Amino acid sequence: MLQEKLNWRYATKKMDPTKAVPQDKVNRILEAANLAPTSSGLQPFEIIVVTNPEVKAQLSAAAYGQSQIVDGSHVLVFAAWDNYTAERIDAVVANLEAERGGKSDAVTGYYDNLKAQYLPRTAEVNYEHAARQAYIAFGMALTAAAFEAVDSTPMEGFDPAKVDEILGLREKGLRSVTIMPLGYRADAGDWLNGAKKVRKPMGELVTLVA
Amino acid sequence: MLQEKLNWRYATKKMDPTKAVPQDKVNRILEAANLAPTSSGLQPFEIIVVTNPEVKAQLSAAAYGQSQIVDGSHVLVFAAWDNYTAERIDAVVANLEAERGGKSDAVTGYYDNLKAQYLPRTAEVNYEHAARQAYIAFGMALTAAAFEAVDSTPMEGFDPAKVDEILGLREKGLRSVTIMPLGYRADAGDWLNGAKKVRKPMGELVTLVA
Repeated sequence: MLQEKLNWRYATKKMDPTKAVPQDKVNRILEAANLAPTSSGLQPFEIIVVTNPEVKAQLSAAAYGQSQIVDGSHVLVFAAWDNYTAERIDAVVANLEAERGGKSDAVTGYYDNLKAQYLPRTAEVNYEHAARQAYIAFGMALTAAAFEAVDSTPMEGFDPAKVDEILGLREKGLRSVTIMPLGYRADAGDWLNGAKKVRKPMGELVTLVA
Repeated sequence: MLQEKLNWRYATKKMDPTKAVPQDKVNRILEAANLAPTSSGLQPFEIIVVTNPEVKAQLSAAAYGQSQIVDGSHVLVFAAWDNYTAERIDAVVANLEAERGGKSDAVTGYYDNLKAQYLPRTAEVNYEHAARQAYIAFGMALTAAAFEAVDSTPMEGFDPAKVDEILGLREKGLRSVTIMPLGYRADAGDWLNGAKKVRKPMGELVTLVA
C-alpha cells in the first residue's frame, strides 16, 4: 500500500495550471508534516503555503524559472529555524506541559540539558540541525501528497537568500530549506512522466552485519 | 490511512527483546527507504542493518546505553556519503542509463553540470547535503515501519565517531547520521507508550500567503 504510493509519486516536471488541489487535501498533507518526528520534539521549522500568483511568480524566478511553482496551485516552502534559542525551546516545553497536563522534573531536566547543549553552539550548527528535521517532515508531506493522489515536486534548486527575502523569512528567524509545489501532472510536456523510476539495487543500499 | 499510521508510531523507549521483526517486514521498510526521492537522484547514503548481538551492544554503548538498540531485533544505521566524487556520480549516471536504456545528452549534461558544482565544494558541505537526503529516507522508513505495525525509534543521540568506528564506515567513505532500531514495544517500562502525542498547533506550523 505504502510502496504503491511511493512508486506512484515522482518529481513532477510539468503541472496542469488549470487544476487546483482541494484545500482538504492540502490540509492533510500539512498535518502529515506536523506528525513527523523531530529531534527532542522541537519541530524547528515552519511551512509557508503560497497561493498568491504574484508571489508564486517571484518564487519561480528565484528557482531558475521552474514552472511547477507557478502551475501548481499551492507551493509549500519549508523553512527551518535560523537558530535554537531559550525562548523557542521554552515554548515547546510549555506546549508539552499544557498538552500532557503539567510539569514534570524529568521533562524540565531534559530540556534544561538540551539548552545547555544547543545554546552555546553557533547559529549555523543549530540551523543545519533544524534543517535536517525539516527534511523528515518534507518526506512525510511528499508521502501524504501521494496518498491524496496529488502530484508534488521536491525542490532544492533555488536561491535561498532570494526566497527568504520574498517571504520575509529572516525577520521571522527562519531560513528556506526546500520547496514543494502541489498540483496535478500535465497531460503533456513532462519528460519524466512515465519514465522508469530508477533506484540503487538493494544490495548497494544495504549492508548486513549479522 | 497514512495519518492513522503516523499517529500510531511513536519513539519507542522500551522494546521487547523476545520479539523479532520478520525479515519480509524489514525488507519492505528498507525498500521504502530506497524509494525516497533524493537530490538529483543521487541517493547519497547507505543503510547498515545490524542484527549481531555483540555489535548491537557496542552501538548501544555508543548511544549512551539506549536499550532499544540491544532489545530491537534489527538496527538500521543510516550513513551518508562523506563527500561527492566523480566516481560516485558517474556510477549513478551509469545505473540510470542502464535502467532507462542508453545515454542521452540531457542526462550527461545535467550530471556534468552537477559535478562542476559539487566537486569543488568542501567535503563537509557535500556531506551535510548528503545527510539531508538521508533524512528523507529515514522519514519514509519510519513511515514504512508503522505500516508494518513495527515499532521504531528515530535516534540522533549517539557518538557518530564511535559508530563510524564500530561499523568501519569511514573506510567506506560513509559517516553515520541516524539510527533506527526496529522491534516491538514492551508491555511495561516505556513511559512514552500511551502518552499523548504532542505537536504544534497547525496555526503555528503554517503561514498562508494568499
